[in-house]
Amino acid sequence: MHILITGAAGFLGQRLARHLLTNPALERLTLSDLAPPPVPEGDSRVTSLAADLTRPSASKEIVTADITAFYHLAAVVSGQAEANFDLGMAVNCEGTRHLLEAVCHRAPGAKFLFASSLAVFGGDLPSVITDDTALKPQSSYGTQKAVCELWVNDYSRKGFVDGRVLRLPTVCVRPGKPNAAASSFASSIIREPLHEEVAICPVDPALELWLSSPNAVINNLAYALTLEAEQFGDSRTLNLPGITVTVQSMIEALTVVAGQAATDRIRYQMDQAISAIVASWPSRFDVEGAIALGFERDRSFQDIVRSFASEMNTAKAEMGRKNSIEKNNIT
Amino acid sequence: MHILITGAAGFLGQRLARHLLTNPALERLTLSDLAPPPVPEGDSRVTSLAADLTRPSASKEIVTADITAFYHLAAVVSGQAEANFDLGMAVNCEGTRHLLEAVCHRAPGAKFLFASSLAVFGGDLPSVITDDTALKPQSSYGTQKAVCELWVNDYSRKGFVDGRVLRLPTVCVRPGKPNAAASSFASSIIREPLHEEVAICPVDPALELWLSSPNAVINNLAYALTLEAEQFGDSRTLNLPGITVTVQSMIEALTVVAGQAATDRIRYQMDQAISAIVASWPSRFDVEGAIALGFERDRSFQDIVRSFASEMNTAKAEMGRKNSIEKNNIT
Repeated sequence: MHILITGAAGFLGQRLARHLLTNPALERLTLSDLAPPPVPEGDSRVTSLAADLTRPSASKEIVTADITAFYHLAAVVSGQAEANFDLGMAVNCEGTRHLLEAVCHRAPGAKFLFASSLAVFGGDLPSVITDDTALKPQSSYGTQKAVCELWVNDYSRKGFVDGRVLRLPTVCVRPGKPNAAASSFASSIIREPLHEEVAICPVDPALELWLSSPNAVINNLAYALTLEAEQFGDSRTLNLPGITVTVQSMIEALTVVAGQAATDRIRYQMDQAISAIVASWPSRFDVEGAIALGFERDRSFQDIVRSFASEMNTAKAEMGRKNSIEKNNIT
Repeated sequence: MHILITGAAGFLGQRLARHLLTNPALERLTLSDLAPPPVPEGDSRVTSLAADLTRPSASKEIVTADITAFYHLAAVVSGQAEANFDLGMAVNCEGTRHLLEAVCHRAPGAKFLFASSLAVFGGDLPSVITDDTALKPQSSYGTQKAVCELWVNDYSRKGFVDGRVLRLPTVCVRPGKPNAAASSFASSIIREPLHEEVAICPVDPALELWLSSPNAVINNLAYALTLEAEQFGDSRTLNLPGITVTVQSMIEALTVVAGQAATDRIRYQMDQAISAIVASWPSRFDVEGAIALGFERDRSFQDIVRSFASEMNTAKAEMGRKNSIEKNNIT
């Protein structure tokens, strides 16, 4: 089994790579991104490549006949795609199409897992989103993801690839630094206070979000690979499970886990551009179909915060141990 | 007012051109197609151009700053897009995108009327289609039209163009010869018998179709230009009005208008490929929204057949007159 992940330098890509590598049946894993992605634990099964998917030749270079599954995670994120329309179209639409063409010609019929987003929804929405809700995206990012969803479905119908389109909830809590995604604040308002740093909340705390923990998303991405094509109905597109929370309830969960001192580090500073994009996304989904197929969902946002805090502390302890060893080696 | 029509050599393009030219306020009309389209009545306001929209430079050549409205009708039809996937993608997706880019940069904010199709629908459909029905196209043509719908909406949201997406019912009765559209038979089974020729019916007569006469479609395409952007809600996409008929009821209407002798010229010869594509299209729509906006619908299929027969006879009489004049000139 040889799997390729695009956008593998990103947080989800790296985490997915680590997860897939726990499977001894995985013989090779190719990671690609604009710069060669880090190789988890220096695993010898991993090849790390630089590829700019906006160049048709780049897709041809990274796609080889022995690859049985592709995770296409590479994308320009929502805020950036809105600010730079041409870049969003080039990476999110044309890049995906070049990759689909390369797979279709060099590894025909391979599994093609495409990470889509709740941003495909927008406009005048029903109170609960189902797999039959019409797509009226109100952002360029959502439009570009919706376009690729249609392509992956048609390439699958034609037998060119064996596609699975997974619409990810907003992933929270992400470690690291804020990024250009309009949803970046959702992680910031939890992560920064836990790091004893100030965070900005740019939206009305009454705003509802549709969230999934990184763990649930990674488990679900890995699980999607095990499904048979026949388990999908008239569409290869699924809304992945998530939980519905208000920003206010997220902050309350932070207080429960980390105390009032953490919560006090949140500053409220409305950003109309971010609010407009995020408020156009739905927050309530009927995902019974996905649950029935075997996909998992988080239990509560408190659990998500606890899990993130625990991982953060483990990472800090690990960092401390390494620093201490280095210090001892020096002295 | 200067309008450009792509795909203007086609039946609808020529008919739309004739209709638009009846408006004295129209100063210029540019017609483009792979070969220079015929100029109706040799009207001096018309410029006729050859342009292959799959070449990005072609769009740049035909789009000029003084053009205030674009009718983008050029497309590879359904049967052809299914048989030649690459051609369908090149013309229907990339061609449309090149044109949108050219308009966005050379005639920003111009009206952009895109002819879409009921083929964007498919899969497990509700009994009645509304503007909120999810798109699960089951053909490459439907996929490509759905992709362009999303783009036209996003280009409109960004203010790059002022888009209107009109999903045309199957247009029937078309004059001329059968084409590679899967729906071509719908016109053949009426047109050929009226011309005293044999026609093939490749589908189950119980099959329901969603039809519009050429007159209603042309009137609606012209009317869409007069709407203000504000009259659209969260989407620039509309299902144009049509009527629901079974193939059987179409044949009965032919019998009423032209007698049993005409109907007897229809041969029944199932074609699985055509049946599969056409049966995946819906036949019942709620178009009250479009009607409220002022779009028109046909009264009955009998009226459509009568109108076609009358136009056919007028054309024959005209042809006879011309031949007679030519003959007299020769002798």
